[in-house]
Amino acid sequence: MVNPFFINNGPLKISDILKTLNLNNNNNKIIEDQNVLDIKDLLTSNQSDITFLHSKKYKNIAKDTKASFCITTENLKNELPNSCKPLVVNNVLVATSKITTKFYPNSIDDNFDNTVNYINDTKFIDKVKFGKNVLIGDNVTIGSNCLIGHNTIIEQNVSIGNNCSIGSNVIIRNTLIKNHVKILDNCIIGKHGFGFFPVNNANIRYPHIGIVIIEDYCEIGCSSTIDRGSMSNTVIGQNTYLDNQIHIAHNVKIGANSIIAGQVGIAGSSTLGNNVKIGGQVGISGHLTIGDNVEIAGGSGVIKSIPHNTKVMGYPAKNIREFLKENK
Amino acid sequence: MVNPFFINNGPLKISDILKTLNLNNNNNKIIEDQNVLDIKDLLTSNQSDITFLHSKKYKNIAKDTKASFCITTENLKNELPNSCKPLVVNNVLVATSKITTKFYPNSIDDNFDNTVNYINDTKFIDKVKFGKNVLIGDNVTIGSNCLIGHNTIIEQNVSIGNNCSIGSNVIIRNTLIKNHVKILDNCIIGKHGFGFFPVNNANIRYPHIGIVIIEDYCEIGCSSTIDRGSMSNTVIGQNTYLDNQIHIAHNVKIGANSIIAGQVGIAGSSTLGNNVKIGGQVGISGHLTIGDNVEIAGGSGVIKSIPHNTKVMGYPAKNIREFLKENK
Amino acid sequence: MVNPFFINNGPLKISDILKTLNLNNNNNKIIEDQNVLDIKDLLTSNQSDITFLHSKKYKNIAKDTKASFCITTENLKNELPNSCKPLVVNNVLVATSKITTKFYPNSIDDNFDNTVNYINDTKFIDKVKFGKNVLIGDNVTIGSNCLIGHNTIIEQNVSIGNNCSIGSNVIIRNTLIKNHVKILDNCIIGKHGFGFFPVNNANIRYPHIGIVIIEDYCEIGCSSTIDRGSMSNTVIGQNTYLDNQIHIAHNVKIGANSIIAGQVGIAGSSTLGNNVKIGGQVGISGHLTIGDNVEIAGGSGVIKSIPHNTKVMGYPAKNIREFLKENK
Repeated sequence: MVNPFFINNGPLKISDILKTLNLNNNNNKIIEDQNVLDIKDLLTSNQSDITFLHSKKYKNIAKDTKASFCITTENLKNELPNSCKPLVVNNVLVATSKITTKFYPNSIDDNFDNTVNYINDTKFIDKVKFGKNVLIGDNVTIGSNCLIGHNTIIEQNVSIGNNCSIGSNVIIRNTLIKNHVKILDNCIIGKHGFGFFPVNNANIRYPHIGIVIIEDYCEIGCSSTIDRGSMSNTVIGQNTYLDNQIHIAHNVKIGANSIIAGQVGIAGSSTLGNNVKIGGQVGISGHLTIGDNVEIAGGSGVIKSIPHNTKVMGYPAKNIREFLKENK
Repeated sequence: MVNPFFINNGPLKISDILKTLNLNNNNNKIIEDQNVLDIKDLLTSNQSDITFLHSKKYKNIAKDTKASFCITTENLKNELPNSCKPLVVNNVLVATSKITTKFYPNSIDDNFDNTVNYINDTKFIDKVKFGKNVLIGDNVTIGSNCLIGHNTIIEQNVSIGNNCSIGSNVIIRNTLIKNHVKILDNCIIGKHGFGFFPVNNANIRYPHIGIVIIEDYCEIGCSSTIDRGSMSNTVIGQNTYLDNQIHIAHNVKIGANSIIAGQVGIAGSSTLGNNVKIGGQVGISGHLTIGDNVEIAGGSGVIKSIPHNTKVMGYPAKNIREFLKENK
Repeated sequence: MVNPFFINNGPLKISDILKTLNLNNNNNKIIEDQNVLDIKDLLTSNQSDITFLHSKKYKNIAKDTKASFCITTENLKNELPNSCKPLVVNNVLVATSKITTKFYPNSIDDNFDNTVNYINDTKFIDKVKFGKNVLIGDNVTIGSNCLIGHNTIIEQNVSIGNNCSIGSNVIIRNTLIKNHVKILDNCIIGKHGFGFFPVNNANIRYPHIGIVIIEDYCEIGCSSTIDRGSMSNTVIGQNTYLDNQIHIAHNVKIGANSIIAGQVGIAGSSTLGNNVKIGGQVGISGHLTIGDNVEIAGGSGVIKSIPHNTKVMGYPAKNIREFLKENK
């Protein structure tokens, strides 16, 4: 993913990285002042980068990684090419999280944005029609013919296209909004997802360096929340309409022309096709794939992926005819 | 419905209406400069109005309509009396939506209300007890002994009775609030419903010319959303209490003395009786009728109408004794 | 419960109490100008207090109460010791509610807090990092190194520890927040619960004199609502993380190191252990006990208490293996 918003704090010295992970250099024979530019996945890393390997599932990709360093375990380190030096740790994901945090420190904490100014004091004063008390953060762009309602906060790292209408009491950050999009009142868009490593007494949050992308002609209903992605983006496809009080978790991808009724929740990293219709209060578990033209009856709980052109109902959701026959 | 709020943009010339629908006048033999005052349903239309007929279900009412014009289909046009000229289209509801939009242009888009002023600059400064940053739009009335909390926006077309308490961060428009009503923090009341015609790439919203009516002694919990009606009103009956995070869709009617627990969702156009008790997270599908004294256990999904004096549970909801026996 | 926030309006004359309950003193032979300091439960009352007894379940405790007065019924009055004079009423809970209201008048109505000032005009101006339009009510304390976002309202009776981050558009009252806590945008914390006596035409709200306590290292997700307790407190244990759009009702107690996913609702007075994991959209009925290390699958509806170390799923929730076997 090319991240347009989060500023890379690199290069970091490899010696700093070792220190952060409480590793000594005895066995690694690493040149301590070597620079590392970025942290990326195994596939997209370059020679100047560090990567990570936490599961045997990825050993085929690991063999060809171009990264010079890789956070991994004792068991997996031999899957790496000679050009890639292993940094052996007990918990790869926690270690990766720590290093990603060093590269992208702003991606961890979603504290309030103290870069904002009243819109009247910005370049947008003549370009945008706006309500009272509108706040605009750093690194914001807004196209022509846009409306922004009262008390709305456009925090850092937001790009809004043309002909968009943002309601009142909305908070947006780390989000790319295309054209002709409507965001209704009270939405919170672009906050980090509910992703962290559980640790007794004080969990460790992992970075969310993804963004939210909302395509042309979407409408997002009142009081909805859409979290940004952790390592990829959260995407709402073109002309997809969300009703009120919907929650879209991090890394979710929704296709085009879909209709999602009130109080639906979609858990992290699920992917939905085009022309999907979802009734009210449906829940969809994480990491599922929902096909094109799928219809999910209101109140259903989806815990398995659903093929294209299927209608489902129930908890757990099954073929709708089967469900209705069993529940006459 | 007599709509107290939306301003009728009529009269419109029938020639404008034909043009909007891309109809020519060859077969209709219509006097082009005839005025049309309003769009109404078949029953309530007068000679000066246009109406619409989209289903055979309504043919008995259609026979007696007093409207001079009717948007309808080739198949249905012969159900109309001679005094009513058919305007034949392919999709009656889309065409009706377009014409309603011409009469009531403000009922389509719920952009932020740019008519508001700080309450300190209005006639309410001495009449109402209010917090910081309260905004009041055009065409608002407020009775005696009312409270309005911080950052709350009373947008256009709101009437509030006596002895009401509105919380902070609330947004209200197109709503009639009677007396002794409490609206808790963060509610959004009176926005348009989730009603539109799905069209690939760019859906078409239809007008919502109804309002929200909240009767005496109601309480609406924090962060709830109540949408206004499309062609009728959304109504919350006297002394009905809603808990937090509830969603009431457009055209829903709830009776008196009902109790609705947290996170309940009621889909469009359902009607509930009096003394109804609804547990947390219940979902009720659209267009159902729920009788008086009905009790719905928490977590239930209601997909059929429920007769008076019935207790139900489950998904789909059924008689509670039956459900509990089956699920011991 | 020692209530740190609500100010006791007492002492009240017993004659005032009798009058409020429409009782005459003929049979009670009470010295009319006797002072009553507080209203407490049977166990914690002292000689200077009034208590209440509404069920035979409590007769063993009633026998030993130290209170001088007790609101009770004709049937129950003989369970009291001679030192405790019965005040006989038809509905003990309604009467208790009325008297509690007299002692704690501020615990009934959650109108907007008119004691607030802009933070710039308070002693916190140099101590706290804050956004625009932050409001602070009476009786607020804030520790070191805290952040408070834009438009946030810290209403009366809030104590915030060190190193806390409060988001934007948040409203908090009657809440004790310990250290290292994050409250994300748009939360409403500390409002009264959904507790009242149903009465046709105008329900009677009962007092909520409890508070919300949020222990160290908690995180509360966007747009969540946490109600304060009625006679006890609502508690979120240390290092427990809540996702977005969660509703926690009054008197709920959640243990430490728990993880609660989006749109979960927990009804009043339920108690959860430590290390509990709850999937999205789970509903938990009121007055249940959920053990330590319990896991509840997303979408489940819990209507019975759950022992320690149990995994459940379904509606009603049952052993997860059993549920999945039945629903293959």
